[in-house]
Amino acid sequence: MANNLQELLDESSSTVELLRNSQLGAFIYPVVPAEFTNWRREVVAWRRTAVLFDQTHHMVNLFVSGPDALRLLTDTGINSTAKFPVDSAKQFIPVSPEGGVIGDGILFRLAEEEFVFCGRAPVANWLTFRGSSGYNVDIHRDERSPSRPYGKAVHRDLWRFQIQGPAAWEVIEKVNGGPVEQIPFFRMGRLNVAGQQVRTLRHGMAGAPGLELWGPYETYEKTREAILEAGREFGLEAAGARAYSCNTLESGWIPSPLPAVYTSEELRPYREWLGADSYEAVNALAGSYVSGEITDYYLNPWELGYGPFVKFDHDFVGRDALEAVDPEAQRRKVTLAWNQADVAKLLGSPVDPQGPGYQFFDLPNANYGSSNFDTVVDAEGNQVGLSLFTGYSANERAALSLATVDPYVPLGAEVQVIWGEPGGGSRKPTVQPHEQFAVRAVVSPAPYSAPARENYKPGWRTSMR
Amino acid sequence: MANNLQELLDESSSTVELLRNSQLGAFIYPVVPAEFTNWRREVVAWRRTAVLFDQTHHMVNLFVSGPDALRLLTDTGINSTAKFPVDSAKQFIPVSPEGGVIGDGILFRLAEEEFVFCGRAPVANWLTFRGSSGYNVDIHRDERSPSRPYGKAVHRDLWRFQIQGPAAWEVIEKVNGGPVEQIPFFRMGRLNVAGQQVRTLRHGMAGAPGLELWGPYETYEKTREAILEAGREFGLEAAGARAYSCNTLESGWIPSPLPAVYTSEELRPYREWLGADSYEAVNALAGSYVSGEITDYYLNPWELGYGPFVKFDHDFVGRDALEAVDPEAQRRKVTLAWNQADVAKLLGSPVDPQGPGYQFFDLPNANYGSSNFDTVVDAEGNQVGLSLFTGYSANERAALSLATVDPYVPLGAEVQVIWGEPGGGSRKPTVQPHEQFAVRAVVSPAPYSAPARENYKPGWRTSMR
Repeated sequence: MANNLQELLDESSSTVELLRNSQLGAFIYPVVPAEFTNWRREVVAWRRTAVLFDQTHHMVNLFVSGPDALRLLTDTGINSTAKFPVDSAKQFIPVSPEGGVIGDGILFRLAEEEFVFCGRAPVANWLTFRGSSGYNVDIHRDERSPSRPYGKAVHRDLWRFQIQGPAAWEVIEKVNGGPVEQIPFFRMGRLNVAGQQVRTLRHGMAGAPGLELWGPYETYEKTREAILEAGREFGLEAAGARAYSCNTLESGWIPSPLPAVYTSEELRPYREWLGADSYEAVNALAGSYVSGEITDYYLNPWELGYGPFVKFDHDFVGRDALEAVDPEAQRRKVTLAWNQADVAKLLGSPVDPQGPGYQFFDLPNANYGSSNFDTVVDAEGNQVGLSLFTGYSANERAALSLATVDPYVPLGAEVQVIWGEPGGGSRKPTVQPHEQFAVRAVVSPAPYSAPARENYKPGWRTSMR
Repeated sequence: MANNLQELLDESSSTVELLRNSQLGAFIYPVVPAEFTNWRREVVAWRRTAVLFDQTHHMVNLFVSGPDALRLLTDTGINSTAKFPVDSAKQFIPVSPEGGVIGDGILFRLAEEEFVFCGRAPVANWLTFRGSSGYNVDIHRDERSPSRPYGKAVHRDLWRFQIQGPAAWEVIEKVNGGPVEQIPFFRMGRLNVAGQQVRTLRHGMAGAPGLELWGPYETYEKTREAILEAGREFGLEAAGARAYSCNTLESGWIPSPLPAVYTSEELRPYREWLGADSYEAVNALAGSYVSGEITDYYLNPWELGYGPFVKFDHDFVGRDALEAVDPEAQRRKVTLAWNQADVAKLLGSPVDPQGPGYQFFDLPNANYGSSNFDTVVDAEGNQVGLSLFTGYSANERAALSLATVDPYVPLGAEVQVIWGEPGGGSRKPTVQPHEQFAVRAVVSPAPYSAPARENYKPGWRTSMR
C-alpha cells in the first residue's frame, strides 16, 4: 500500500491510467440540496432576477497569517502582489516549476498579515506544504464538506454566499437595511445581515453587480433565511447544487484544471508529502482525450485565460518556465456552443434500444470526472483544442463547454468535440460502456454571449459540411 | 391562517387547485446520496448481480402495540387479518368511507400485540388518528427524514435495507456467516449481521429471493459496511436515491395514490385533526389530468391492483362502498412502455431553442409531484386511463409509467399519455412554462416484462397511425 502520492505513482505503470480509472466518482457539490424549486427556474433567475448561491460546502478555506504570509503567496503565485491592499482579493494562481497551473481560487487579504484562500484542494495543499518550512506563517484549514454526509452533521468554519443577478443590489440593500456602496470589483466591504456585520467581496455576473459574503458557520441558517426573506419581493431564488454547478458555463471560469504536480523532480518532496488519498492521488481524469504522458494534460496560464495575471515583477515557482512561453502561440479560452441536433441525439441516447449508446449527458452538469479533457478537432480530424467543462445552460437552451483552442481557430468556427471515452470507456464508476460521438460546436467567446452565434463563420477552412 | 386541513380546504375555492399549486416541490428520497457509482450502473445491478437498497429515510415507521392493536388494524384495512401470524407481513391498505385508497405500505406483525407499519405519511396519519380513541393501543412514530437536511444530523429509530437481485441470496448467506432458510414471501426471519441478530422480511425482485432487514439506527453505518463488504465479490452495488426512486417502475408498485380523505363528511373530524402542514395539506398534485372534483383523483383498490387484498370477512371503514363496486368493471394496473421516438423528442426538448418546450423529463425519475395523474387517451382522444408514476428503466432502456386503464384496453394496445399540464402548467415550483405532448405508449403487464412487446396489437381499435 502506498503511503503517499509519490509511492502511488511509483507503483503505477501510468499516471494517466491511474487517474483515468480513479474510483472516486463524479465531482460532487455537497450538502446543498440538489434543487429548491427546479434547476431550470433557478438558472433562469440569475439572468432575470437574482439568486442566492451557497458556496459554503464545496471548497476548502485556507487561512494563512503571520509576518511571512505575503512572502509565501508572492513566491507561490503568478500574480503580482505589488498592489494588494487589505480588503481586496485576487484570483490566485500557482504553477509548477514546469509552468503548469496547479489550480486557482480566490485569495482574500483580510488584514496586513492575514489572508484566506478559497478553492479546490490542490492550491490549498500546495500552500500548506510550501508554508511548512522557511516561512513564519500560521496555516489553518477549513476542509471541504464530505461529498456524501449521509445524515451526519456537517461543520465548517464559515458559511459563504453570493447574491447575484440583475436584482442583486436591491436585495443587498434591503438585507443591509440601507444603501450599500458599490465598491470596485474584487474589493471588500461590509454588510449588515441578520443582526451582524459580515465581510463582503464585490463580485458580479454578466455585468450586474453582486456580492460574495461570509461569516461564522454558527449563523449560517439565520443569515440564509434573512437573505431569502429580503429577496422574496425581488424574485430572488435559492440556487441548489444542480443549478450552481453549471453557472460557470455562462461566466466562463474553468474550475477543474488537472494539478500539474505529477512529474517535476523538484516537486518530489511535495508528492512524498501528499497523501495516497489526497485530491491529487484520487481525482478522476475523464474524457475522450487520452495521452500517454500526464504532462500533456497540464495547462499553462494563457491556455486557461490567465495570461493577464502573469507578472514577472517578482520571483515565483515556475517563473523560468513561463518566461520561455510565447503567449501569442498559446491556446486560448473559449466557449463552445454545442450543436442542437447533435445534443438532442446525445440526450435521447438512453432510450435507444440498440447498442451501448453514448456516455450519459447529465443535466445540467455533464462532467463525469474531477478534471475533464475532451478532444476538439477540425473537419480533417486534427486536434485543435481541449474541451474542459461541459453542461447545459437553461438560459441559452443550449449545451455549452469551456475549452481551450489553438490561436488560429476563429470565433464562429465550427469544430467537433469528441464526447465519450475511447475503447468503450475507462473503469471510472461514472462510466458505463459506450460509443464515442463527435458533436459539432461553434467557437464562441468566454464568457459566452450571443454575438458569437451571429458571427458564425461558415467560410473558415475547418468548417464542417 | 388555517389551523388544520379542514380549515385550509374551507378557505380554498378548489381542493384540486390547492393541491395542483402546492409549493412543496418534488417528492424527495432524502439523505441517501443521489449516486454511489452512477444510477445506470446501480439500476442494471438489480437485474444482473445484486443491490443494497437503503430505505431508512423516505418512509414513516409507525409502531402500534397493545391489546387492541390487531382490532385497530382490522377495522381500518381492507386486508383480512384472519391469518396474520406473528413474523409475517401484509401490504396494508386502508380506504376512506367512500372506498378510495388512503395509501398503502408494509405492516409487520412483530409479536402478538406488536406491529409496525412502514410507508408514506397518509396511512400513518390515519392509523394515528383512528388509534387515538376507542382502542387500547400505544402508538409511536418514527418520522420520515427531512427532505433537505442541509448538513444537520438526521436521527431515526431504525435503519432499513433491502438486499435484492439474482445474487442477493449469496450475499445474504455470506453476511449471515452460514445458510439462511428461504422462508415464504412476506414471512419474517432473522439474520446475523455485523455482530448482531436482526429481523428480516422475505422479499424478492423479478423472481429472485431477497430480504428486507432492519435494526437500531445506532448500528446503521456498521451494518451497511458489513453488507457492502460481503457483497463485493458478488457484484453487489449500493443503490443511491436516483436509482432507488425508479425501481418501482420494474416491480410495478404504485407508491403515490392521492389519499382519499378530502370529501367524506365522516372524515371531517380527521381533517380537523390533520395539520395545515400535513402531507394531505401540502402534497403536490401533478400532471395533465385536471378535474374540477378531487374525488375524480381517488383510486379504489382494484384500480391499483389491490383487488385480491379486499376481503369482506371483516368489518372495516369503507366496506359498504367497496361492496357496491363491480370488480370486473374497474380499471386495472398496467405498465405503459413509452414510445422511443417520442421520448427522445421529450429528452431533447431542453436544447430546442424555440418555444417553451415540454415539461422536463428528469432521469430516471420524471415525476414532478407527490401524486401524479397524467391522462391516457385512445386514438380518438377518449380517456381510457390514468398514468400514475413515470420514469426510465436503464434495464429496459425505455421510459415506463405505471398506470390504470379501462378493463377493455388489451395488453399490446397503443395509447397516448398526455405529458405536461394544460394551459402552460400550474404554479408548482417543479413546473416551468411548457406545452403538452402526447406520447405514444404500449399497454404492458405490471410488473413489466418483455412479452408485452412481443405481443403488440396493432389491430386494436385504439391503435395509432
